[in-house]
Amino acid sequence: MSIITLTTDFGAADWFVGTLKGVILGLQPRVQIVDITHDIPAGKIRAGAFALAASYKFFPKHTIHVAVVDPGVGSRRRAIAVRTARYVFVGPDNGVLWFALARERIKAIHQITNERLFFHPPSNTFHGRDVFAPVAACLSKGMPIQKVGPATKACVRLAWPEPECSADSIAGEVVYLDRFGNAITNIDSDAVAAIGPAVGEVVVRNKRVCSLNSFYTAVPPGKAVALVGSCGLLEIAVSGGSAAHRLGLQVGNRVVVRRRKPGPSQ
Amino acid sequence: MSIITLTTDFGAADWFVGTLKGVILGLQPRVQIVDITHDIPAGKIRAGAFALAASYKFFPKHTIHVAVVDPGVGSRRRAIAVRTARYVFVGPDNGVLWFALARERIKAIHQITNERLFFHPPSNTFHGRDVFAPVAACLSKGMPIQKVGPATKACVRLAWPEPECSADSIAGEVVYLDRFGNAITNIDSDAVAAIGPAVGEVVVRNKRVCSLNSFYTAVPPGKAVALVGSCGLLEIAVSGGSAAHRLGLQVGNRVVVRRRKPGPSQ
Amino acid sequence: MSIITLTTDFGAADWFVGTLKGVILGLQPRVQIVDITHDIPAGKIRAGAFALAASYKFFPKHTIHVAVVDPGVGSRRRAIAVRTARYVFVGPDNGVLWFALARERIKAIHQITNERLFFHPPSNTFHGRDVFAPVAACLSKGMPIQKVGPATKACVRLAWPEPECSADSIAGEVVYLDRFGNAITNIDSDAVAAIGPAVGEVVVRNKRVCSLNSFYTAVPPGKAVALVGSCGLLEIAVSGGSAAHRLGLQVGNRVVVRRRKPGPSQ
Repeated sequence: MSIITLTTDFGAADWFVGTLKGVILGLQPRVQIVDITHDIPAGKIRAGAFALAASYKFFPKHTIHVAVVDPGVGSRRRAIAVRTARYVFVGPDNGVLWFALARERIKAIHQITNERLFFHPPSNTFHGRDVFAPVAACLSKGMPIQKVGPATKACVRLAWPEPECSADSIAGEVVYLDRFGNAITNIDSDAVAAIGPAVGEVVVRNKRVCSLNSFYTAVPPGKAVALVGSCGLLEIAVSGGSAAHRLGLQVGNRVVVRRRKPGPSQ
Repeated sequence: MSIITLTTDFGAADWFVGTLKGVILGLQPRVQIVDITHDIPAGKIRAGAFALAASYKFFPKHTIHVAVVDPGVGSRRRAIAVRTARYVFVGPDNGVLWFALARERIKAIHQITNERLFFHPPSNTFHGRDVFAPVAACLSKGMPIQKVGPATKACVRLAWPEPECSADSIAGEVVYLDRFGNAITNIDSDAVAAIGPAVGEVVVRNKRVCSLNSFYTAVPPGKAVALVGSCGLLEIAVSGGSAAHRLGLQVGNRVVVRRRKPGPSQ
Repeated sequence: MSIITLTTDFGAADWFVGTLKGVILGLQPRVQIVDITHDIPAGKIRAGAFALAASYKFFPKHTIHVAVVDPGVGSRRRAIAVRTARYVFVGPDNGVLWFALARERIKAIHQITNERLFFHPPSNTFHGRDVFAPVAACLSKGMPIQKVGPATKACVRLAWPEPECSADSIAGEVVYLDRFGNAITNIDSDAVAAIGPAVGEVVVRNKRVCSLNSFYTAVPPGKAVALVGSCGLLEIAVSGGSAAHRLGLQVGNRVVVRRRKPGPSQ
C-alpha cells in the first residue's frame, strides 16, 4: 500500500475532497489516502505551506504529498511535481509546497504538462480533481516523475520570517494560531536552546507574559506559558485555555525571548 | 478492494459516522470507505441529492454510494437499493438519491426489507448505522441486490428546476453555494455552449454582474466572473473572494445569461 | 487488516490528526484508521469519554480504540493501554477511557512507559502523535500488551450521573447535545422499559414537554418527542428541528419520566 496525503482549502462541507479521492481510487485502488487538513482558509497559500511543512515528515518514505491551495487555478500558473530524497510533492507552483521543500533535499522538479494523465475533460476550476489527483495516483503506481512533463530548475518560493537573534534575546513573531488557541512562532528549538536554561522571560506585544516551561499545565490554569511545541517551534499557550483569546494574539504579533538578567546576588 | 462512499447530514462533531464505519468494517474488512461529505445541513434532502449527483460519477465502476439524509427515519418511509449500469445506490427513498439516479441507466430498484441483514437490534433513529451500513457492506461483498428485499418500479423523485431557454437568453437560478462562496446555477454547459462565444452578459437579481470567462482569476481581484465550473454548471464567482458575500447571493436567486446584442458596426 | 479508531479534541483545521496517522502508517501499513470524531471540545474529558462509550462497541473484535483528550499532556499524568475481553483501549489515564471501560470486562491495565516504542524525540505537548499513535500501531501488529510497560491495578474513573428511580418516575439529566440538537439523557432503555407502556409524560426543566414515542417524526413538525435513541438512552428531540434550540436545553438540565396516572375510569 502506498500513501497519498492531501492538504487543501476545499473544506468539508462540499463534495470536492470526495471526488478527488474517487479519481485517485479509480486509477490506484491500493493506496491509503490521508487527509492532513482541508480547512486551510480559502486561497491562503502561506497557511497551506505551513500545515504541509508541519506534517509531511511524519509520514514514511515514498509518501506522495499533494497540496492544493490554488487561487490561480486555470490561469497560467504552473503545476509541479517535485521528488526529494524521501518524498514526492505535487501541487500548483505558487509556493504552497515551499516551506516543506526548503527542508528537503530536492532531486528533481518537473512541470506537470502531460495532458494524457489528466481526468478528461479537465475543468478550468478544479485541478485538484482533474490534474493533481490523477498525477499523484500515477506516481504512486510507480510512474517515473519525468512522465509528468519537462524538468525545470526552480519553483516559486515563499519568504519565511527569520527571527532576529542577539546575545541576549531572540525577536520573532506569531506565525500560526492552532485550534487550541496556541500561538506558534517562528522561533525554533535551536534558537531557544542557544539561550537555554538562562531564558528569563517571554515578551509578547511588548508585555512580559510568561517564562519558559516544558508543558502546558506546568503553570496554574489561566496562566500563560511558553514552550517548544510539537513542531519544534516556540509556542505561547495558556494553561487550560486559549492564548489567542486570553492574550488577544494574532498572526504577526511580535514575540521576544530574553536571557535572564544576572541578579545582584549571582 | 471495493469502495463505499458516504453522503450524510451526520456532521463531524459526534460519533455517528464512526459507528457507521465500524458496522461496515465488521462485515466487510476489504473496503475503502470514502466520505463525500457529512455536512449536509440537517434534514436537507435536496442539498444531499445535489452533493451526491455532483460527485458519484468520479468513482470507479461498481462503487456503492450510500446517501443518508433521513429526517423521516423510523417512520414508514421506504429504504431502497438501486442498481444502475455502473453503480449501486443505497439510502432512504425520500429523493436523496434522485438527482444522481436521473443521470444513470437504472437496472433495478429494490426495497430494503430483509431484517436479517440489519444490525441488531436496529434502532428507530439511526438507520445509517443499523440498516444502510450493513446492507452496503453485504452488497460490496457481492450479495445479489434481490436479497435486500422485493423489486419495486418507482422511487421518490425530486423536481430539478429547469432553466428557460430562448433564442437570446437562458434564465435559471442559483442552486448551491459552495465553501468558496461560488454560486452554482442550474444552467449547464450545453445550454451555455448553445449561446456560445456570443454570450454578452450574465445578469443576477436583475443586475448585470459580469461576462463569461473560463477561470476565476481571469478578472481582477474583487470582480465578478461567470464560468462553467467543475460540475459542468454555470457558476457566478468573485476573483479572490466570495460571490455569495460580495453579491449577496442566495439559493433561488435568478440568473440570466444573455446573447450579445449586435452592435451598429457588426 | 486491523482497525484503529481515533477519538480526540485535535480538531480538523490543523495538521494534528494527519501527523498522528502518518506515524501509525509508518509502523503499520496494513491498518484501517477510523475517525470517531476529532471535534471533542478542547480538553473536555467527559465529552470524549461519552463519544468513545457511544461508539466503541460497533467495531469488530480486536479493534484498538485510541482516545486522546489530554489537557495534562507532558505532566505526570499516566498513559495506559487496557485490554478487555473484546478490545484494546489506549490513551491518557485521565478518565477519557472510563465510560467505555466500565461496560467491558477488563483483562489487563498497563502503564505506558516503554520509551523505545515512542516517536523520537517525543514532544511534551503531543503524545497523541509521539506516544499513543506508535503504541497503538505496535499493538495492532500483535505486540503483547505487557511490552508497553508494567501492569497496574486501577485507572482513573469518571462519575456517571445515575438517574433516580422510584415506582412512579425516573429522574435524570441531559448528558449530551448532538449536532441535530437532540438532548441525550442518562436514562437508559431498561429504566424506560421498567415504566414501559405506562409512560405518561416527560418533564424537562419542570415543564411537561412530551410523551414517549419511537421515532422523530411520530409527532408533527416543531413538536417535542421523547424516545430511546441509537445509544440506548432516552433522548428529547423536536420533529424536524433542534430540541436544544426550541426548548433551550443544556447539558445538566433535569429530565423526569413519569408513569401515567390512572384516570377515574380505569
